[in-house]
Amino acid sequence: MVAGFEEMWRDLDGIGRDARSGGYFRQPWLSAERELSAWFAEAAVARGLELHSDGYGNQVAYWRPEGSSGPAVLTGSHLDSVLDGGAYDGPLGVVSALAAIDRLRERGVTPDRPVAVGVFVEEEGSRFGLACLGSRLATGATTPEQAAALTDRDGTRFLDALAAADLDPSLGAVDLSGIGCFVELHVEQGRDLVDRDVPVGVASGIWPHGRFRFEFAGEANHAGTTRMEDRADPMLTYAMTALAANKQARLSGQRATFGRLDVTPNGTNAVPSLVRAWLDARCEDDATLARLVEEITRQAGQRAERDGTTLEVVAESVSGAVHFDPDLAARVAAPGQWPVIPTQAGHDAGILQAGGIPTAMLFVRNPTGVSHSPAETAETVDCLAGVEALADTLELLARD
Amino acid sequence: MVAGFEEMWRDLDGIGRDARSGGYFRQPWLSAERELSAWFAEAAVARGLELHSDGYGNQVAYWRPEGSSGPAVLTGSHLDSVLDGGAYDGPLGVVSALAAIDRLRERGVTPDRPVAVGVFVEEEGSRFGLACLGSRLATGATTPEQAAALTDRDGTRFLDALAAADLDPSLGAVDLSGIGCFVELHVEQGRDLVDRDVPVGVASGIWPHGRFRFEFAGEANHAGTTRMEDRADPMLTYAMTALAANKQARLSGQRATFGRLDVTPNGTNAVPSLVRAWLDARCEDDATLARLVEEITRQAGQRAERDGTTLEVVAESVSGAVHFDPDLAARVAAPGQWPVIPTQAGHDAGILQAGGIPTAMLFVRNPTGVSHSPAETAETVDCLAGVEALADTLELLARD
Repeated sequence: MVAGFEEMWRDLDGIGRDARSGGYFRQPWLSAERELSAWFAEAAVARGLELHSDGYGNQVAYWRPEGSSGPAVLTGSHLDSVLDGGAYDGPLGVVSALAAIDRLRERGVTPDRPVAVGVFVEEEGSRFGLACLGSRLATGATTPEQAAALTDRDGTRFLDALAAADLDPSLGAVDLSGIGCFVELHVEQGRDLVDRDVPVGVASGIWPHGRFRFEFAGEANHAGTTRMEDRADPMLTYAMTALAANKQARLSGQRATFGRLDVTPNGTNAVPSLVRAWLDARCEDDATLARLVEEITRQAGQRAERDGTTLEVVAESVSGAVHFDPDLAARVAAPGQWPVIPTQAGHDAGILQAGGIPTAMLFVRNPTGVSHSPAETAETVDCLAGVEALADTLELLARD
Repeated sequence: MVAGFEEMWRDLDGIGRDARSGGYFRQPWLSAERELSAWFAEAAVARGLELHSDGYGNQVAYWRPEGSSGPAVLTGSHLDSVLDGGAYDGPLGVVSALAAIDRLRERGVTPDRPVAVGVFVEEEGSRFGLACLGSRLATGATTPEQAAALTDRDGTRFLDALAAADLDPSLGAVDLSGIGCFVELHVEQGRDLVDRDVPVGVASGIWPHGRFRFEFAGEANHAGTTRMEDRADPMLTYAMTALAANKQARLSGQRATFGRLDVTPNGTNAVPSLVRAWLDARCEDDATLARLVEEITRQAGQRAERDGTTLEVVAESVSGAVHFDPDLAARVAAPGQWPVIPTQAGHDAGILQAGGIPTAMLFVRNPTGVSHSPAETAETVDCLAGVEALADTLELLARD
């Protein structure tokens, strides 16, 4: 007897949860996320699925009923979280995928094509700064050499992180050549479905998204004895840039956020020598994203001149607009007459679509719209509607 | 044979120095600072001084020539540094104190009163946030109970830090009841002596100084999907406050710095839930300091309303203006006709003066004025002039 949706959900509840904030710290290749990975392997094997694990921590578990053949229908999501994140972003898609297979079996459905559940590592990029790293490696969007050059914020190198998790990158990434299409179920990260009063929606596409590291350099000095006019304080250049980014995004209906900072030396009585700040920018199309970042950089540069500081901007990742397969979206939306809506959040689904695999996404209503926060939530009744919708989708797509 | 000034200086050069930045990390009760403390004990004993160490890590080493009596003349400074600090701030005063005793002996001077060299711990407050913690404990400005309530930024409690350094706080603080006066030599942290073209100066007093923790709280959320107008982003409130603090201080000729930040969760793709920022404010008098902090807080509060965030301001430490003993300053300045100048930097000297011990300070010229930075420096010829001035001072003050 395998666990049902609610039982699986309870199993995951305490893993990586911070007692104080109530949020999750499930950074890739560290203990909580490894525990989730082991949980997935166990849940897949308990269902008789054929488990493939790769050298990076990606997992794909196949249901190949007798007589099934041809390209597989892949579903699934990720198990890692942002720092102090919510319970639903990622795990909801994995748990729902397993539950949807259970539903198909309960319905007596024997798919004509294999059905698979995938778990991709480091979707959030919370550790090595590059979102969707696992799916990027699986599709070739990022090469093993590019990944090997990454270090996390503590200075741990990517390959050392893998070794510490007993992973062997020489095994390569999971083979997606047998995948015919991908459907990722995800908690909605906005309030579109609340406004429409429906529990489930289908994604039309993903806004383009970039992460840019702004390095503001000045001169460390004594906070008491250095006259204000003698300073080269990069904190001021940063502060003005953060306000400018917000204003530019607000005026144009786009998104720009400075949510991560690293100050050197970060002492109360010292003018900083260096402020590193990460800009997360997302826009409705690629040209608008480029213009927004250019304008923020221009204003930052002007202020740097005034402050006597310097500015370097490094694009850590830029993902172009993703348009999910419109025919597939229409097929997925049809059974429940679900609305088709865009999203500003990045997903492994976007990487697989860009990698040539026709991809669709199902969203489950989020009553507050809050995400990447301990307050992220979804009603159980909506989650179960999501499982039904995903089961409908898999039944439809795995039919010859 | 004891080491001379330059030899002592070389001995300390590599201790706690970061190879990349060239700056010093000599945080109290950790390895580099403990090594310096052991070095001082050895240097004092090598000179035949009588070493007193207390339960917190303060040290006082007495030279009591036969026939000397009465209140002692204390000199010295501190050995800890800010994060990524310079070589001179603190150690110059300790090394010069030992070298000045050597000079008196070379001169054949036998003081009528004992001469002592003190080293006070955690002068910078870089670890537990309260500057001059060692001298505060020694004078009673901070009680053992208040100190026991402190935690460092990693959550280590004060008493645990002491225990890890093999210190026993039940032994109490060094007894300063036998100290008649204190003279601290220190590298200048501005360019006053450069402008005056003299190697040495005498302090008139210390500006009042406060450290205030600003806690800006908002709502964590997804950096991509949350519309700008739906956010409660504390980073914006902070950014405007940092700019306002700078502007207010600049317009009024005072000092205000935000050099330390702690962002939660500090992820690139999450709107922060909390930004903690520390304001370092220093003004020419107590009333001006109160007005400056009030105005910064008022502007921060207004912006918080607009951002939908909240603000709490906690005064972590406020030190009133210090006026050094004017008669003592005049006596110290006389032999070299040194100028008498104010400083905006806090020192143990300020704590001892406020604690009822007549106190003076000698400054050694700093060619760039830069301090609390790896770039902090002083010319050896000026340092040696400082040693001579300190020897003159001790000879004068230790005479009956």
